Order: sequence, then C-alpha cells, then structure tokens
Amino acid sequence: MSRYLSSKYDKLKPYVPGEQPKIGEYIKLNTNEPPFDIPLSVLDAVKKEAGNMMLYSDPGSFDIRNAIAEYYGTNAENVIVTNGSDEALYLAFLAYCDKNTPAVFPDITYGFYKVFAEFTGIPYTEKPLDDKFNIVVQEYFGAHATVFIANPNAPTGIALGLDKLEKIISENRDSIVVIDEAYVDFGAESAVKLVDRYDNLLVVQTFSKSKMMAGARLGLGIASAEIIEDLNRIRNSINPYNVNRMTSAAGVAMLKEKQYLEDCRNIIINNRKYLTSSLRILGFEVTDSMANFVFAKHDKISGYDLYMELKNRGILIRNFGIPRIKDYNRITVGTEKQIDILIDNIREILENK
Amino acid sequence: MSRYLSSKYDKLKPYVPGEQPKIGEYIKLNTNEPPFDIPLSVLDAVKKEAGNMMLYSDPGSFDIRNAIAEYYGTNAENVIVTNGSDEALYLAFLAYCDKNTPAVFPDITYGFYKVFAEFTGIPYTEKPLDDKFNIVVQEYFGAHATVFIANPNAPTGIALGLDKLEKIISENRDSIVVIDEAYVDFGAESAVKLVDRYDNLLVVQTFSKSKMMAGARLGLGIASAEIIEDLNRIRNSINPYNVNRMTSAAGVAMLKEKQYLEDCRNIIINNRKYLTSSLRILGFEVTDSMANFVFAKHDKISGYDLYMELKNRGILIRNFGIPRIKDYNRITVGTEKQIDILIDNIREILENK
Repeated sequence: MSRYLSSKYDKLKPYVPGEQPKIGEYIKLNTNEPPFDIPLSVLDAVKKEAGNMMLYSDPGSFDIRNAIAEYYGTNAENVIVTNGSDEALYLAFLAYCDKNTPAVFPDITYGFYKVFAEFTGIPYTEKPLDDKFNIVVQEYFGAHATVFIANPNAPTGIALGLDKLEKIISENRDSIVVIDEAYVDFGAESAVKLVDRYDNLLVVQTFSKSKMMAGARLGLGIASAEIIEDLNRIRNSINPYNVNRMTSAAGVAMLKEKQYLEDCRNIIINNRKYLTSSLRILGFEVTDSMANFVFAKHDKISGYDLYMELKNRGILIRNFGIPRIKDYNRITVGTEKQIDILIDNIREILENK
Repeated sequence: MSRYLSSKYDKLKPYVPGEQPKIGEYIKLNTNEPPFDIPLSVLDAVKKEAGNMMLYSDPGSFDIRNAIAEYYGTNAENVIVTNGSDEALYLAFLAYCDKNTPAVFPDITYGFYKVFAEFTGIPYTEKPLDDKFNIVVQEYFGAHATVFIANPNAPTGIALGLDKLEKIISENRDSIVVIDEAYVDFGAESAVKLVDRYDNLLVVQTFSKSKMMAGARLGLGIASAEIIEDLNRIRNSINPYNVNRMTSAAGVAMLKEKQYLEDCRNIIINNRKYLTSSLRILGFEVTDSMANFVFAKHDKISGYDLYMELKNRGILIRNFGIPRIKDYNRITVGTEKQIDILIDNIREILENK
C-alpha cells in the first residue's frame, strides 16, 4: 500500500477469488467451471472477429444484446451486457444503493455483495439463513433497501421457488430486487419471466457457468427498459466500451449451440446426483444443490483439513473460512472420472482419521 | 431513467464516445483507430486461447503483465492491466482522489477526467491551456491534488517534453501525478523511464492506438509496486477478473510483432505530416500534433458545419461542441488514400462557401 492511497480504504477487504493455478496443475473443483470443450463454431467466430480488433467494440453491444434478447424471449432494450456479471452487480450497487438506501442480503451468500457494499460505503444488513441454510423469505418483505438474492444461493446451492421470489419482489415495490442467477440453469427457475410484470426487478446472469465462458467475461442484466437505461448511465460514466469484440462474438456463437449447452447441462445435473449420493454414502451431510457445485461437511474432518488434504493430493475444492460454514466445502461438479478420483481420495483420507 | 435510481446521479453527464457506425458504412476518422490489419500470429493466439474460455482468466494476469514488463523494461510488480485504459484511470480516481484530495487537469483534455470526477463526487479544478493550447506547466506545481495530464494532450495532439513532465512530478511529491500516454508512441516521449525515480508517478497506456487493439480492450498502468498494489486492492473490490483470456493472449502476441508495430507507427507519423500540410495548404490552422490525429480549424467554416458536411459525404470526423474548441475538429490520421479522399471533399466543401 502506498502513502497516497485514500484513507477511506484503510479497512478495505477486497474479494478473494478461488485459487487459479496453471492449467493442468490440479483437478480443479474450486471455481465452478464446466468440464467441457468449447465448440469449434465459437472458436471460429472469435478468430474472425479478432480480425476487427483494431476498431473499437460497439459501445451499444448491439449484436450480443440482440442475441441474448432472442434467447431469453425479451427485447434488446431490456438487456445490458457487462464485463462478467460482477460488473452488472457493481453497477446495481452504484445505481440503487446510497447512504439512504441500504443493501440487504443473506449472511451466507456470494461474498462479493458485502465487498461491494463496504467498498462503496453503503450501509447493509445481512439476514441470517435458517439452520438448514434456507433463505427466510419474509425477512425481506418491505425491506426499504435494495435486496440482493442469489438463486440458487451460493455456496449452499439451495434454490428458492419462483413463487417465493415473486413474493419478495411484490412485497418491495418501492425498492429494487436483484436476483443473481449465476447458477440458475442447473435446476432452478429463472425470474426473467417476471421482468415484464415488475419494474423493480433486475435479473443478473452470467455466461461463466452453463454457457462455459468464464474466461471470456460476459455477464448480463435483464430488467425494465428504465432500469437498463439507469445502468447504462452508470456504465457510460465508467467504461462505455466494457465488452470487447471477441467476447461478444463468442457469446453470439455460443447461444446458437443450444443443443450442446443443453446436453452439457444435463450431464452436470446427472453428475451432481452421482457426486451427492457418493458423498452421502461416505457419511457427508450434503445440501440439495441446484447449482453446478455441492456443499458438504463431514463430522470426522474439519472443512479446512479436508480442503488441505485434497490439495496436497492434487485436488482443489473451496473452503470459505467463514465461521458459520467453516466445516463445509464447496465442490464443483466435474466429470464422472473427476468425481471417482475425488471420492477415492476422500475415502482414503477418512479411513486415516 | 427509473424512479429507483439514486438521486446522487440527478446531474450526471455520462461520457459520450465517438460515433461507432457499422463497419464499412463510413470512412471513419473519428475515434483514432489505426487503419492496419491484425497480424495472423495474433489471430492464431486468440483462437488458441479461446479454447480455454471455459476456465476463468488469471486474476493476476501473469502472462500479459510479464510480456508488458519485458517490453517496457520494467518488472511485472510495476504493471497492472485493465479492461481498456479508461478502467485504469477510473481506478486511479478511486484510489487517489477523495473529498480532501481533489483532482486537477487541463480545461481542454480527455473528456473522461471530468466525467470520472463528477461521477465519483470528487472536487476538481480545470486549469486553462494557454491561447496556443499549451499546458501551463507551472500551474500544476504544488497542486495538493491528484494531477491528470494526457501526453500528448487530447484532442490537441500537443506534447510536453519529458523535462517539463518531470518538473510537474517532482514539484508534487506529496500527490500522485497520472500521465495518460494513450498516444505517446506517435512522437512524444514516455514517462515510463521516470517510474523508478518517482513513487508519486502513475503512467497509463493503452493497446487501443499504436498496438491496434481498441476492440480487444486492454489498458495498463506502470508505477511503483506500492501504487500497483493500491490499484489492485481497488480492482479486487470491483472486478478481479477484469481482463479476459483472449485479450491477454492477443496482447502477448501483439507485443512480439515489434517490427510490424514500428512500421505501422512510422506510416502514421508520415501520413500525419501529409495530412497536416494538406490541410494547411487549404488554409486550415492545424496544431503540431504528436498523436495519430490532427486538430484543425478553418476561418471559412464552423467546426460543426464541416463535421456535418463531411458526414453527409460518408466521412466521420470528431467535433466536440465545447465552447473553447467548437471551431476545431479532431481528424484521425488514416491511410494516404483516406487522406486524399478527405482533402478532396474538404476542398469541394470550401469552394462552395
């Protein structure tokens, strides 16, 4: 830290992303990336568009917004694209929270909400999940605050039904409700279909998980045209050319691979069942995850110890070190083969306890 | 605008980028893009790396930071990469300005400084350029403010010598001086070599101009390791995966094309001379630009009228509509052929006046 840094950051705790070792160094089950290849059509689209990289990207991101609108059955005016969904969430914090409009989110959820709130100096409340890690829906009614709900929630994987989400939205007509659907495609129901009815709803999604583009950085928001206009005003005050040409082209091409995406998603859902039941057979407590990860703990070993022992064996999973969930680990759903190796290693570790 | 947008943005004026029509619609001399093709080695590197896009990009951006460090003769710990140089400038505003540390920059300069200052609610002072559009160096001594200087300045193209820049830096040891070198490779001298001596200096550069990657979005900052650490703290509180895989790979490959970049730069410098003298022959007043654009006005036609008449003829140039420079236009240095077409059209327009 230099002596010039503004004193307002004295207590700043930046977000800590999961470890990103060199490719191939580990069996990597720590950052929820899909274990599938990128279709050739996407690689070709990227290479072709790279030939235009001497020209600025379209600040209106017309092509990719149109493709997204078509895919989700909405209009381009209801779509904003961002440099990863973290940027969409950041824009939402900037637009809809201030000293007088706090943020509210669960105590156990995506860690970046708290980072954004603290970074932007916004007051916030964390509502405890119940003892089964469920979001207590009524706690968010009449919040007089901007509500952030990850659905399915992270890192628990537990999803709320659309009826409960709608209740939160309809009980907060004077506040924005942000539904962060990073993992929605693996079994939960999307709130996109509610956008037409609720002008206080902003749905955030990402191409990083079910669309397999984490390394390309493409996020999106779907909401009323007025909300999209708000977010664009903020975006244009920070970084109007936020999405690059290659990423836009990749996104357009990827959305055309509907069947492939569907097949990959089904494999993940099947493998999640396999991983969940294999862990339960070994005595783990595992939440009913609707995401491409599971969340599990075992009475015989602490979360950190299991994480470290697996790391020493070349397998990365994610431990958060947060008091309430320190005995849990989040494990990405990989291939069947990766699951078999993981389970064999865990069995050996447990046998030595 | 929705009724939910925070009232702090009531007076917000977002940055207005130059028009970005569809490729081929206009002879495009309005956003300072280079008129050259992307080397095949860069396209191949992008396609190859696109095959890894299911995996998150490296939040440490190790490969591209190393390549930049080698290219500029510094160390990776002195380099941060960003999603375009606008993001580097935004991080600098967030890190080094606050209610007690205002910003200072010229009255005529890159328009985003003012947008950043207003957006982040930071007090700022604009120091008038002299009547020949030169930066008045002494005005920035002992500023007790974070100083932002574009060198060469935009949209005038006029550069300060390194001795004058160093004077500004050395006369502000208790404040950060940001030198924005977006256009430095076309004839000005870089302050990168001063980074070792001044821990209050942050040099910002971009791959958008001389490195021909505007559509890939890659910016960078070079400074003391402490300043880079500050900026990373902010980055990690907003968007840790800010640079995507394809852009990083493109940047690494492009820096290996040293001779090609050098050749392209020399063509631009030659064409700038040709464009400048052609405009002067037609009676234009033209600044001595060290950038890949020229800045020119003519007594017989207003800046806006010339811009509009050329636009109607299929040629885009940039008019800023700012009182002090409203009779000027900024014209990107294109190919010889583009210059000939431009000059022929301007001659016709002037003949009809």
